[in-house]
Parts: sequence; C-alpha cells; structure tokens
Amino acid sequence: MTGPRFTALAQSLPATVPFVGPEAQERAAHRPFAARLGANENGFGPSPKAIAAMAAAAGEAWKYGDPENHDLRAALAAEHGCRPENIIVGEGIDGLLGYLVRLTVEPGDRVVTSEGAYPTFNFHVAGYGGTLVKVPYRGDHEDPEALLAKAAEVAPKLLYIANPDNPMGSHHPGAAMAEMVARVPEGTLLILDEAYVELAPAGTAAPVDPDDPRVIRMRTFSKAHGLAGARVGYAIGAAPLIAAFDKVRNHFGMSRISQAGALAALGDKTWAAYMHRLVAASRDSLAEIARANGLTALPSATNFVAIDCGADGAFARRVLTELTAAGIFVRMPGVAPLDRCIRVSCGPEAELAAFAAALPGALARARQG
Amino acid sequence: MTGPRFTALAQSLPATVPFVGPEAQERAAHRPFAARLGANENGFGPSPKAIAAMAAAAGEAWKYGDPENHDLRAALAAEHGCRPENIIVGEGIDGLLGYLVRLTVEPGDRVVTSEGAYPTFNFHVAGYGGTLVKVPYRGDHEDPEALLAKAAEVAPKLLYIANPDNPMGSHHPGAAMAEMVARVPEGTLLILDEAYVELAPAGTAAPVDPDDPRVIRMRTFSKAHGLAGARVGYAIGAAPLIAAFDKVRNHFGMSRISQAGALAALGDKTWAAYMHRLVAASRDSLAEIARANGLTALPSATNFVAIDCGADGAFARRVLTELTAAGIFVRMPGVAPLDRCIRVSCGPEAELAAFAAALPGALARARQG
Repeated sequence: MTGPRFTALAQSLPATVPFVGPEAQERAAHRPFAARLGANENGFGPSPKAIAAMAAAAGEAWKYGDPENHDLRAALAAEHGCRPENIIVGEGIDGLLGYLVRLTVEPGDRVVTSEGAYPTFNFHVAGYGGTLVKVPYRGDHEDPEALLAKAAEVAPKLLYIANPDNPMGSHHPGAAMAEMVARVPEGTLLILDEAYVELAPAGTAAPVDPDDPRVIRMRTFSKAHGLAGARVGYAIGAAPLIAAFDKVRNHFGMSRISQAGALAALGDKTWAAYMHRLVAASRDSLAEIARANGLTALPSATNFVAIDCGADGAFARRVLTELTAAGIFVRMPGVAPLDRCIRVSCGPEAELAAFAAALPGALARARQG
Repeated sequence: MTGPRFTALAQSLPATVPFVGPEAQERAAHRPFAARLGANENGFGPSPKAIAAMAAAAGEAWKYGDPENHDLRAALAAEHGCRPENIIVGEGIDGLLGYLVRLTVEPGDRVVTSEGAYPTFNFHVAGYGGTLVKVPYRGDHEDPEALLAKAAEVAPKLLYIANPDNPMGSHHPGAAMAEMVARVPEGTLLILDEAYVELAPAGTAAPVDPDDPRVIRMRTFSKAHGLAGARVGYAIGAAPLIAAFDKVRNHFGMSRISQAGALAALGDKTWAAYMHRLVAASRDSLAEIARANGLTALPSATNFVAIDCGADGAFARRVLTELTAAGIFVRMPGVAPLDRCIRVSCGPEAELAAFAAALPGALARARQG
C-alpha cells in the first residue's frame, strides 16, 4: 500500500507555512498572550453594526452564502465608482492572491516582488511553480523604480507592490502608484495590494481606472474594518480579469455570516471615521512607547508601527523573543535591513500598556545577548 | 494596453460555474422563493448552541481564526477515534476537494468518477487540467465494481465516490466501501465523500483505518449540522496526505466564527439525534407528497429525496421549471437516466407544504408540454 501520487510540483514544495498563528504560540507556552499585537489585526474591533449583522445572520447559517456575492459587490461598486463586474470577493486577500497566481503563473514563469514583502503572496507563487525575482527596498519603502526596472528586464507575469507597505508601514502617494500602472511593461499585471489604504493619509489610494487591464487592486475587511476573522477580501480590476476568477474560485467559499458582516461594516461610515482616529492615536502611542525606550518608530500609514530597535536583525529577534516570553505577541520583518525592526499592531490601551510594560525588560535582556 | 497573460490552462477553461445560487434566481425573478429546497441545505437550522457560539464569536471577529484549527481538529479526532494529524479542516468539502486535486492532478492525469456525480469535483478536476473518465450509475446507485474496473483500466490519480450518493440519495453499506478501499489500484487515491453520512442508516459510514493511505474521507458541517453558510468541511486521511494540504491551502482561510460554530455543533449530540429524527420524518413527508401526486420517491439516506417524475429528463426539467416559476427552489440530476427525477431537500413543514401545494399544478403544466 502506497499513498497518493502527488504532482511533481507538490512533491517539491516545502511543508512550511507562511505564518505561525498566535494560538499555536499560546499552546506552546501554555498560557494566553497578554497582548495580541502581532498580526496587524484590529483590536478595536468591527463596527457594532457589523457585529449585530453577523449575530443575526448566525441563525441563517444553514443557507449557503450567495456565490455571486451580489449585494456586497453592488455596495463595493457604489463605494468605488465602478461596476459590480469590476469587483471579485473572496476568502481574504490571501485567497484572491492564490486564485490570481493560479490563473496566470505556471512553472518557470517569473514574478517580481520586493525582498521582505508579503510572504503569503510568495507562498502562492512558489505553490504554482513560479520563480520569484526580488528587488530590495529603498530605505524603508518599496521601490517602484527598481520594481519597474526589474519587470522590464525579466517580463514577469505579475508585479507585486503593497501601498501602504507591510511590514514597514511606509507609503507612496497614490499618484506614484498611478504612474507605476502607466509604466508597467506590456504583458505584466501589476498587483497593487491596498490592504491598509483606508488607514493611510488622504491621497494614498491610487487614482486608477477600474477598467485598466494593467492593474488589479486588492482590498480587505480585515484591517480598517476589523473583520480579519470573517475572511472577506476583494479585488478591483478590469471586467475580463475579474470574470476569469469564476473559472477557478471556490464559488460557495464565502461564509454567509461574513457577507452580512462586511456589508454592514461598509455601510457604517461613522465607525470608519472613528476607527481612523483611534488608529492614528494608537500609532502615536506606539511611537511614544518607542521614544520612551530610546527607540525610533517609523512613520506609519497603517494600523501597525515598525519600531527600529537600533541594531541588527539578531538583536531585534532577541527583543521579539523576550517580548513573546513576556506574553506579548508581535512579529518582525523577515529580511535585512528591515529586520532591525519589530512590528507592533495598533490596539486598545490595555494591550499597548502591556507592551509598554514589557518592552524595557525585553530590551535589557536582549542587550545582555 | 493588453490584459494579463493567463496560463494556457486558464485560457482553456470555460466561464461556467458549478451551480447557480438561489439568490441569483430570486433576483432574476424579482421575488424570493417560497421554499428553499434545492441545495440540500438543512432548513431545520443548526444547533442553538452553534448559533449562540457564532453570535458570541462575532465580537471576536477582529482576530484571525487559528490557522491550525487546533480545537476543532482535536474534537473531530476524538469523535472519529483518530489523531488530529489525520484531520484537515477547510472551506467546505468544495475547498478541500480543490486542494486535493491541486496536490495530485496535472494536465493529462486521469480521474475516475460516475456520470452524474458531484459537479463541483468535476469543476476542480477540469480546473487543474485533469481528464475525467466516467462510468454510469447502476440503477440509482454509484457502481463500485464499475468504478474499480475503470480505475484498473486507466490508473487514475483519483477515484471519487459519494456514500450516501448525491444526487440520488442512495447508499451502500459502509462495509462495501471498506471493500472498495481494499481493492483500489496501487497509485490511485479513493475519495470517499461522506457529506451526508450522519443522516444515513447505521453502518453506512465506512469502517476504515484513518491511516490507510489509499483513501481520504470527506465530511462536512453543511448537511446534518445545518451550517452550509459557515463553510466548514473536513477530511480524514493518513497523516502524510493530510500534512500535504499545508503546502497549498489558504492557511488563514477559515472564518473564526465558523470554527466556533462547528465546535459547538459537534458537541451538541442531543441536537444531532433530534435532527436525525426530523430529517427522517421530512423524508417520509416528501415521499408522501410524491405518492399523492402519483410519483415515486426514491429511498434516501440523506437530507433530500429524489422524486421520479415518471418520464424522461425533458419532462422532469419542465416540472422543475414550473416549480421554479411557482416559487419553489429545487434542483435535478444533470444526466440521463438520473434526470427523470427532481431532487428536493428536506425542510420545515411550511416549506414542504409550499412544495406540496405547487407540485400538482407544476405536473399538470409540464404534462401539457
């Protein structure tokens, strides 16, 4: 008796996962985290209207969700001044990135991204046999010029950039992204990941024609809307590209409860404005905590702050290890020189206070090596 | 400006979808259905404990779900007398079938199933370039002997059977499935889809060693547990096969609310027993409605009943069209001779009454051609 015959590609893939979840760390440590600030979740929570809508939808959970996501797409189209045919809804940006890579990348195809950018995108590219070609950040920003130059050189199927950026929290003006779209090489699709854009300064969202075939923009309810656990992402793109997702996606993959929650969240503009203020204040608090410890918080256009620990990646990793041991869940960039930082999510005052309380000891122990 | 360069496979795929949802039909008709009995949803709803757990989890939806699905897998392992390493949880059986096909099937690989069996499985096989080889039903049952003979002939990567069967509702004893496992050709993985097995007579679940590398069993919370809209499926299989899903799955794809609902539903054995009785009574009611209209209900081991309309597929399709026009959502098998039937889901008395009220007129109009 032998097992199944996997594809050659599947056999070649590593068993690694993009991220270890905080629950796994809690189980390993045999205690819960005192502060959950590592996954750029939004601890301020979703709109009370979204919570109410989801609670109400729980009793209707015997029904499959609408596979066309009609109502949510209609509302998103109104929000973005486009047609529902320009919107695809899926199981988070992660799910949509997987579908998009599947539609475009086969073994040997090249994909361009930045060294240190979103690991789950890389997971999908590798998972379909694509070859990742990476360019370094320029300082703490992804580098449109370098990305475009590399794209011109290697003619990738896909070119990825996040604006605002994760893990550094930096951003470019939306106009710079529109210029990037205009310059993307023929035959390359630009993926503009705007997961955090609702929390960024005005003008960060790229002014792009939804029907422009050169770009697809990714958005999510996980960050500004505080619905990470509901798994609702969407993409905005030219209708033919959006229609192609129907060829491969899990049509009945969306939770009906999540559809209801996202629709209610989208309608609650008062909460969205309140959230913008809360997150901005929380960024300031994190910067103040960093300053009080002699560290530098990088400017952030997101709901997290990269804190420069003032030395190399090995040191920052020790800080992170000490924070984790002290019950504080944070993460950090994966590659140098970005990895001189730890990355701390915005969150309620109590969680930030726990972080502030733990940081001096963590730094002291990290400095002892 | 051109669009993205799709893979050759993606370009070749049709834009069709496995199923049109009832909401799309309602939008086209400009009115809601009076009875939602077409998708084998469970209109009796989930356990009140599951509803309460999901409503409570709504406020925690800012947290990503545990990507390891630890608690649910532990509970499922206890339920099935296996280890958590034998269990993978995913976005419905549909999602898990997609991952499994991706892991095993590349263009040109053969996959064996029955003519008229689950369309979404076929959608995935086609979507990864596999070649479907189909054998006919034997009467109203999938035919293990024919499936095994075809597998011996074409050496498929995957061999699919559902027990109980969808769309006919028939079943084989679990022992027959265990025998099928014993006879599956070397190099072929048997997919045993047991989506409906909790509603079947005792002895229908296959007595299979969870670590047997020749078979993977699919289960779901969508049917007996009434949580179709929550999207929670799972598979039971040998640990190396289960581990391979981690290479490709959307690790953070599960809704946290759905995880909570499934865990609570699994724990509510009283509700499960109650549901078993409710569904059995509803099957009897559907059979009685069929009899009162001079039609024959096929025996069912599921939460739906195939009703033989007594003529050919064209006639049954007219009946279905008339029922739809009368506000009754039902579906029907896609191929002859199964398509002499319509397929009606079990459900609350009011919905069955609406079906009973609409059926005589639908039959009369269908007979007028």
